[in-house]
Amino acid sequence: MKHLKRFVAIIITVLLFGYCLNAQGVDEKLNLMPMPVKVELTGGEYRLDQNFKVAIEGNPAERLYGAVSRMLRRLSDRTGLFFLQDYLHRSSVIQDPDMIIDVKRPGEVKLHEDESYNLIVTSTHVSLNAETDIGALRGIETFLQLLEADSSGYYFPAVKIDDYPRFPWRGLMIDACRHFMPVDVIKRNLDGMAVVKMNVFHWHLSDDQGFRVECKAFPKLTEMGSDGMFYTQEQIKEIIKYADDRGIRVVPEFDLPGHSTSWFVGYPQYASAPGPYSVERKWGVFDPTFNPTIEKTYEFFDKFFEEMSKLFPDEYMHIGGDENSGKQWSANHEIQAFMKKHNIPDNNSLQSYFNKRLLAILTKYHKKMIGWDEILHPDMPKSIVIQSWRGEKSIEEAASKGYQVIRSNGYYIDLNQPASYHYLIDPDPDSLKLNNSQRKNIIGGEATMWSEFVSPENIDSRIWPRTAAIAERLWSPKNIVDVRDMYRRLKEISLELEDIGLTQIKNQSMMIRRLANGDDVTALTNFINVVGPVQGYNRAHQRTDYTSFSPLTRVVDAAVPDAEAARNFRYLVEDFLTRNIQDENNIKQIEKRLILWKNIDARLNTIIKRSPILLEVEPLSKELSDISAIGLQALEHIKNKTKVDSNWVNESLGRLKEAKQPQGQVELRVVSPVEKLVIRASEI
Amino acid sequence: MKHLKRFVAIIITVLLFGYCLNAQGVDEKLNLMPMPVKVELTGGEYRLDQNFKVAIEGNPAERLYGAVSRMLRRLSDRTGLFFLQDYLHRSSVIQDPDMIIDVKRPGEVKLHEDESYNLIVTSTHVSLNAETDIGALRGIETFLQLLEADSSGYYFPAVKIDDYPRFPWRGLMIDACRHFMPVDVIKRNLDGMAVVKMNVFHWHLSDDQGFRVECKAFPKLTEMGSDGMFYTQEQIKEIIKYADDRGIRVVPEFDLPGHSTSWFVGYPQYASAPGPYSVERKWGVFDPTFNPTIEKTYEFFDKFFEEMSKLFPDEYMHIGGDENSGKQWSANHEIQAFMKKHNIPDNNSLQSYFNKRLLAILTKYHKKMIGWDEILHPDMPKSIVIQSWRGEKSIEEAASKGYQVIRSNGYYIDLNQPASYHYLIDPDPDSLKLNNSQRKNIIGGEATMWSEFVSPENIDSRIWPRTAAIAERLWSPKNIVDVRDMYRRLKEISLELEDIGLTQIKNQSMMIRRLANGDDVTALTNFINVVGPVQGYNRAHQRTDYTSFSPLTRVVDAAVPDAEAARNFRYLVEDFLTRNIQDENNIKQIEKRLILWKNIDARLNTIIKRSPILLEVEPLSKELSDISAIGLQALEHIKNKTKVDSNWVNESLGRLKEAKQPQGQVELRVVSPVEKLVIRASEI
Repeated sequence: MKHLKRFVAIIITVLLFGYCLNAQGVDEKLNLMPMPVKVELTGGEYRLDQNFKVAIEGNPAERLYGAVSRMLRRLSDRTGLFFLQDYLHRSSVIQDPDMIIDVKRPGEVKLHEDESYNLIVTSTHVSLNAETDIGALRGIETFLQLLEADSSGYYFPAVKIDDYPRFPWRGLMIDACRHFMPVDVIKRNLDGMAVVKMNVFHWHLSDDQGFRVECKAFPKLTEMGSDGMFYTQEQIKEIIKYADDRGIRVVPEFDLPGHSTSWFVGYPQYASAPGPYSVERKWGVFDPTFNPTIEKTYEFFDKFFEEMSKLFPDEYMHIGGDENSGKQWSANHEIQAFMKKHNIPDNNSLQSYFNKRLLAILTKYHKKMIGWDEILHPDMPKSIVIQSWRGEKSIEEAASKGYQVIRSNGYYIDLNQPASYHYLIDPDPDSLKLNNSQRKNIIGGEATMWSEFVSPENIDSRIWPRTAAIAERLWSPKNIVDVRDMYRRLKEISLELEDIGLTQIKNQSMMIRRLANGDDVTALTNFINVVGPVQGYNRAHQRTDYTSFSPLTRVVDAAVPDAEAARNFRYLVEDFLTRNIQDENNIKQIEKRLILWKNIDARLNTIIKRSPILLEVEPLSKELSDISAIGLQALEHIKNKTKVDSNWVNESLGRLKEAKQPQGQVELRVVSPVEKLVIRASEI
Repeated sequence: MKHLKRFVAIIITVLLFGYCLNAQGVDEKLNLMPMPVKVELTGGEYRLDQNFKVAIEGNPAERLYGAVSRMLRRLSDRTGLFFLQDYLHRSSVIQDPDMIIDVKRPGEVKLHEDESYNLIVTSTHVSLNAETDIGALRGIETFLQLLEADSSGYYFPAVKIDDYPRFPWRGLMIDACRHFMPVDVIKRNLDGMAVVKMNVFHWHLSDDQGFRVECKAFPKLTEMGSDGMFYTQEQIKEIIKYADDRGIRVVPEFDLPGHSTSWFVGYPQYASAPGPYSVERKWGVFDPTFNPTIEKTYEFFDKFFEEMSKLFPDEYMHIGGDENSGKQWSANHEIQAFMKKHNIPDNNSLQSYFNKRLLAILTKYHKKMIGWDEILHPDMPKSIVIQSWRGEKSIEEAASKGYQVIRSNGYYIDLNQPASYHYLIDPDPDSLKLNNSQRKNIIGGEATMWSEFVSPENIDSRIWPRTAAIAERLWSPKNIVDVRDMYRRLKEISLELEDIGLTQIKNQSMMIRRLANGDDVTALTNFINVVGPVQGYNRAHQRTDYTSFSPLTRVVDAAVPDAEAARNFRYLVEDFLTRNIQDENNIKQIEKRLILWKNIDARLNTIIKRSPILLEVEPLSKELSDISAIGLQALEHIKNKTKVDSNWVNESLGRLKEAKQPQGQVELRVVSPVEKLVIRASEI
């Protein structure tokens, strides 16, 4: 009912003033993400029942029939309605359809394909129109997000939506090397990408710690370089088909010439130092590098890319190019002699020589090159795409020189920063010194999921739901930047992502059950809800004994980067201190939480005694209890306007500072708001 | 600490009296399932730390190296210890190992392979000895279940275990036809089977509703008969390898001559009526049946089984044979003429003629036949195996006639009966009229997971943890029959099964989140914890509009067959009424629960208003509230020994009877204990 009332109010607004609400105007009412370019609520609603039938018209590609069949099943799963309509096929004849999807031409899963759509819901019909079936897929996701319910059933608000993406390259990179990610992990993440209208799956397939693709020309790549963990070509085809069905490109990355230890386990003859090599078990930047000065290296790559170009249909091939230490090159006399002979001044130029040779091979097999910042070099042609990981300077440099560029700097989701951080980073910020035509070279962005510290069990919790915020940044108009509203919608989208098979919520509960070792999980859950893994590169810096087989089942792995309870508390305190100082409910909410946290320590201690894996966070649990007590004291002072002792303030602030120290690579995410309470108390 | 104290007590018992504790003797202390044949606690413990190293000796098959690597990772995941030991290979040289696994010869994944093992844990070493690596795999699972923890870390109690299975055929059947089950569903269930030492995965691969195996000789089987949902041959090989790595046989079933609609969509010429045919969308027994009277049918099967015999390496091939309606045969004049000509008196004999022809084909391709009860016929040779689904009469018949037989009757886990029911059914009950040599023909049993009412989302919750109880029945000595202790261990095993990837716990939470439509899940969770899906075949009888694309996301699908909260309440009331009538704590526990349930209705109603999928259980929520109130009143009377009014008793019993009525195909599982309270109150 709450929903319905709110809705009626909006309709009235719309009818009275007759204006067309843009995305910003309705973002408090609908749970759409990414927010469409233009949304107009037109009044009324389409009520859903089991007779709902969909017809497909026009000239779509085959993928739309499967997609609409899945749409019906998703609606059915959410509503419990036993739809009469079966699976859709090109030959299906639908009498009196309730929804018509009309598509002008078959879409192709390629860069710059038309993804626009137009969705109209009235009280009697739904129509979805698009140039291509890929646009229709995007519209279907919006349609599903419009589903609402009240006490008499399910409905879609009447609405007119016009929508198209801001950037054509909206990607998610998954590193399948540091930890191998089986087929089902990839598939469910492709499903998640489709929900938020992302269209590029960038698959990091080779690195020091593993080579992950079956290669028939060079079987030792996986036989010796993968520990048996790799994708067969059948599986790769299966995933490419799965992605294509969802309008998603698959761009493979073979990271070259560095990050290549795993290649040399079976093929040491192409390395710049003699070997032997073994699969790397540690994290970092390592020395093994291809030898760019011998012809047999290029003969090898010619054969290799001939096979891979057939396997991967996308027009782009990612050759990595990052973090080449150059040490093997500098230490190899023959390489040094080659450089002298060919007037190659430094390792950077040698890498560029290597890249040009690779470019010729890729071109031969009709592929365009994409690589990380480091491949940018005056010798490289403008057809390449630069993936920028180093910052805005390099975006500026690439775009101003006429290279197409995609942004990943700021979208490193492995670094455990909050969604709000990523959300406010624009691929094309106003601050860049670029003219309009140069700005057009910025064609999108990619969230990058490096996998040193994730397993198939918790990778979803690092990718989702934060990546939905990045997806909105890449799809929606630039002016959609309300962080709190983003978080409101993100919570709903997270449930939708779970619906489609992602595990970011349920696997956390499961990991907590394991950590509690059979005990009641309440206290541990409440604790984990206010902590987060250390951010940035601190995890690797703070503990150096990690290997590819270290356990990823500790508190730091169960904790999520953007703990909801901590964020809500931050907002409560912010509201309290800035606006609602008199709001009794607000104060009670703050108190309730602080009391809860104050009492966690005692309860957690009994669990820790039976579950030694938790010992490392014991001090943090004590800290949480202590700072919650401090917070409660500060709150009392503020409420009662009683003056505080300056010693207490100093001691408290000291204690709070200590509480910011991570333990077991986990940190409390509620220290700052308590600090704010203490400071406010001190100002009375 | 609790654990440690208990443990010390046992050691003392063992040391003082020096007797060898058998499984029954220790079953209250260890969380082993299936319980081994002989367990002796020898005092002390082996403390685990990161230096723990395992060496493999003797002559095992390759699979053991992967299994031990996985064992280390599982230990690491549970303890958070960063073991120094890497992945194990045949070439690995381990200095001063802490655990030695010694295997005499490579095991073969086949019927009657030796699976025995001997495990000794002392305070300084662990040794696991087995005839085959498959026995070692079974021992590894026992070893992992021994892991304990106290405040100073993780340890294994010192122990001597001798163990071997009671039956050589311990299976789980999964029906991949009624609802398709993707590769990852199968893999995680194979992992679950390995945990509880099951060794046969029976894969139901063809039925009216779908043909699920790529067949190169007859591609239309999947092109037209699978809706695109089938296993490629690569995937089948992948699964067979995965099963073999875990010591599990894969027995494919092609159900013939009935249950075969999906074959005829592409190949109607082999049916007993002209067609055309389409994939069946409903549940039940259907008429389409192979025509056993034309030679081209056998030419078809010759080619078909030639290909399948190569694909599936197990020596057994399951040909189904159940529920042939015979209607197409009776209606076909040519078939009738054939029967007359060949003196085939009835449809049953015609099916036997068909089976004999199939047997010749299977024999040609070196396969033995297995089928359901119906294939038993005097004409069939003694080499076939009968899978008995119809009851003890048919087990008796098969075994007494000299056929090998496995029991599935009583193990139909799709019927939503409690684990206790399955647990107490013996494959070879004393009541059978068989002599000892005939009893030897009973070689095991199989839990059968028919999939009319399960999806990949909730199938695990129907299989697990109940199947672990069946696994114990098939492995452990016949006299292990303590139901309460089984449930105590089952709870722990369920967490272990979750650890290994099964979703029976976490997907229920997820389904509840979806049902709550974004609202708080507490009330709904408490409600679902005391209900269960209707049992037996009632689900199909009560609602006849089910198809293969009906939603399986309602309360009935989220509820589990053996709700823990309901069972615990039943035990509390049982204890209260039989033993602990004075136990204050017991009374409080009962009261606490009744109060909780009494209050659910009001809270649930606010959720139902926003989530219409829950409307169908609204009446049941009211019933729960009402009967909880009745239970509280009865309890008061019993506590205070106050006489009750006979009208109240009659009204209450009437009300309780009503509360047993299912709603939305869900039933309350706490009515009987409340009834017992009322009856006890009436006796005061």
